[in-house]
Amino acid sequence: MIITQINVTPVAFKDPPLLNAAGVHEPWALRTIVEVITDEGLTGLGETYGDLGHLTKVRECAEVLIGLDVHATNQMYARIAATVGDAVSDLHGLTGAATKEKSVDRVFSPFEVASLDIRGKAAGVPVVDLLGGRVRDAVPYSAYLFYKWAGHPGAEPDRFGAALDPEGVVEQASLFIKEYGFTSIKLKGGVFEPDQEIAATQALHEAFPGVPLRLDPNAVWSVDTSIRVGRELDGVLEYLEDPTPDIAGMAAVAAQVSMPLATNMCVVTPEHLPPAIAARAIGVLLLDHHYWGGLVRTAHVASLCETFGLELSMHSNSHLGISLAAMTHLAAATPNLTSACDTHTPWQNGQDVVAPGALSFVDGAVPVPAGPGLGVELDRDALAVMHEQYLTCGVTARDDTTYLRRFEPAFTAERPRW
Amino acid sequence: MIITQINVTPVAFKDPPLLNAAGVHEPWALRTIVEVITDEGLTGLGETYGDLGHLTKVRECAEVLIGLDVHATNQMYARIAATVGDAVSDLHGLTGAATKEKSVDRVFSPFEVASLDIRGKAAGVPVVDLLGGRVRDAVPYSAYLFYKWAGHPGAEPDRFGAALDPEGVVEQASLFIKEYGFTSIKLKGGVFEPDQEIAATQALHEAFPGVPLRLDPNAVWSVDTSIRVGRELDGVLEYLEDPTPDIAGMAAVAAQVSMPLATNMCVVTPEHLPPAIAARAIGVLLLDHHYWGGLVRTAHVASLCETFGLELSMHSNSHLGISLAAMTHLAAATPNLTSACDTHTPWQNGQDVVAPGALSFVDGAVPVPAGPGLGVELDRDALAVMHEQYLTCGVTARDDTTYLRRFEPAFTAERPRW
Ligand SMILES: [Mg+2]
Ligand SMILES: [Mg+2]
Repeated sequence: MIITQINVTPVAFKDPPLLNAAGVHEPWALRTIVEVITDEGLTGLGETYGDLGHLTKVRECAEVLIGLDVHATNQMYARIAATVGDAVSDLHGLTGAATKEKSVDRVFSPFEVASLDIRGKAAGVPVVDLLGGRVRDAVPYSAYLFYKWAGHPGAEPDRFGAALDPEGVVEQASLFIKEYGFTSIKLKGGVFEPDQEIAATQALHEAFPGVPLRLDPNAVWSVDTSIRVGRELDGVLEYLEDPTPDIAGMAAVAAQVSMPLATNMCVVTPEHLPPAIAARAIGVLLLDHHYWGGLVRTAHVASLCETFGLELSMHSNSHLGISLAAMTHLAAATPNLTSACDTHTPWQNGQDVVAPGALSFVDGAVPVPAGPGLGVELDRDALAVMHEQYLTCGVTARDDTTYLRRFEPAFTAERPRW
Repeated sequence: MIITQINVTPVAFKDPPLLNAAGVHEPWALRTIVEVITDEGLTGLGETYGDLGHLTKVRECAEVLIGLDVHATNQMYARIAATVGDAVSDLHGLTGAATKEKSVDRVFSPFEVASLDIRGKAAGVPVVDLLGGRVRDAVPYSAYLFYKWAGHPGAEPDRFGAALDPEGVVEQASLFIKEYGFTSIKLKGGVFEPDQEIAATQALHEAFPGVPLRLDPNAVWSVDTSIRVGRELDGVLEYLEDPTPDIAGMAAVAAQVSMPLATNMCVVTPEHLPPAIAARAIGVLLLDHHYWGGLVRTAHVASLCETFGLELSMHSNSHLGISLAAMTHLAAATPNLTSACDTHTPWQNGQDVVAPGALSFVDGAVPVPAGPGLGVELDRDALAVMHEQYLTCGVTARDDTTYLRRFEPAFTAERPRW
């Protein structure tokens, strides 16, 4: 099955004003949709970041993959590594340190996912079956809560409403749990001073007793602040995610708090694993096939984590259904992924490039799509609309900081802030 | 593709009197041939150890896999783990410490390989393509030299002749290189006192200048002896394999010699990796899909080694063509496997259960078999002959020590010996 054509389509979809340590989500979130077409007529889908620098690399690399067999992922990787070269770039500062390898892994990922989609279709099996087969029929996701404004400045409030204090956060959780049935909760913090976020976390703990809780301030605290927060939330948090920057900082915190620390910031590429393991910096690695180099390479990392006694969960940026399907297949095939995964799906508010029906939430979990491959099909009308939105929305790279500064000119995204 | 039947056939083939630290090879080597048959008529092959205790477990586990899809390797593994239970066994003391996990991985391996064979046939691609695709078209193997008697006591000398001193070892190397074109050499040591094996290694170095050399005494030396040998062979060895027992011993040696240490004894299951890495005990891991749990799990380990900067080569016990094919597919798909692999193939002296033609050595390397799946077919006549040999040969488990004691009653396999 030789690759004869690759379509790379940037899309934009509406995103609520979600606050984080870097700023606030702009009104449009960007993604790139990759469609790989083979000589035998089978096509496969991949999804990745939409930032212009990355999109440009994805387009360049798409050209060098023409003529390869969809099984030749080692060759794909080598060609992409040669094309990306020594460029070290990062997207938006919320997924940790940039390295050359990470840039390559990130560009490779959507092509690898699309190749697995094609291989699954050809074999008549879901992608989960190309990764070892299912160990669970449905993948639990967490209610991923954000502090947020009622709506984007100058626009109507969105249907989620404001969440700027513990009460608002609990209300948002209630909505998400009612609509999706989530049985784990994650609060994106790093927005207000730590005591307010402790209060919100405790309010969630009281409102949803027994529900696993996580707090993720995106490394905006000092080591001392992280230890203080960790101790105050002893017995409340399932894990504390990226309280402070860097492996050394995380290790200093980990030695002083009771709960495991999780990361999608200080360990984001293979070269970070040896020093993080040696320093006992983390207890939970948040997998993300978008920057760990696709599904098979992420499965390698999952196996490594099992060997070294690290637990696993899954990280999420704003994404669409192709990514949700890929995450679900991978998580369903990963025996040692035992925590609920993160997803931004509720914030899409129904927008998608995949045709409805294949993906659903049942009691907070997504059943593995039943069809061959990823089990999702492109909705070409929706793709066209979202591509048009991309062309007209005026956003070409995610920049939460500049957007927030428009309304709070004194804001800086420096770390640690508290 | 549902598994409807599994045939498990023990076989025996003639083996020369190869000396090692545990004793000497008996006249018959044992293997177990696994044939997995699916509802759609496709069949797949696997090969594993033939020792009776292991054979019994393989037979027990074959029964619990009926009804599974060949993609469901996670479920296969779980069922095999449940069936094997907490039994901790090892086969013959030359592949390191026994653990419960290793017992499971060892039983799982032939079923996983057979499943990949079937999946490759169904997809019309070689197994290498299910593992990421080839990074090399042919896999280099080493000339695997053994000290040996001219023939088994009481029998005619075999065609390889005696090798009991440096001259005999060099002669053996010349024969292997002439017949197979090998470009790397490994000497199995641990047989004579170290100075004699140093002399043999130096004789090889002089006879084949520039050819990478390894020496493997199977952990029969003390730390001090290992350091002394390592220093005397500075600049001569590509790597020194298992000079001394245990991770701590290997670490003590590694800190004092110039060449990397390799192992198939102190790191043979995932739980050995963290302590070995922390102690810097080894520089090269010798992969072996027969006890690392099949091809995909071995690929995970290979990825881990890349992450931690360990080099890779491949270990071999006496084996037949199904294993050689599996090893070749895996090695061809492993980018960071850069040393020649070990194989016992020349010692088979043409005996095989696979039909001729699929496997060959060209300049010391085996071209990846071109056909779908493993690319080898069972020779049913040869299988029947070898199974008959198994039934009549009187050997049911490899025991090099007892066999040697028949001729040298004072021999013990204690370690360290020197
Ligand atoms: Mg995070
Ligand atoms: Mg060895």
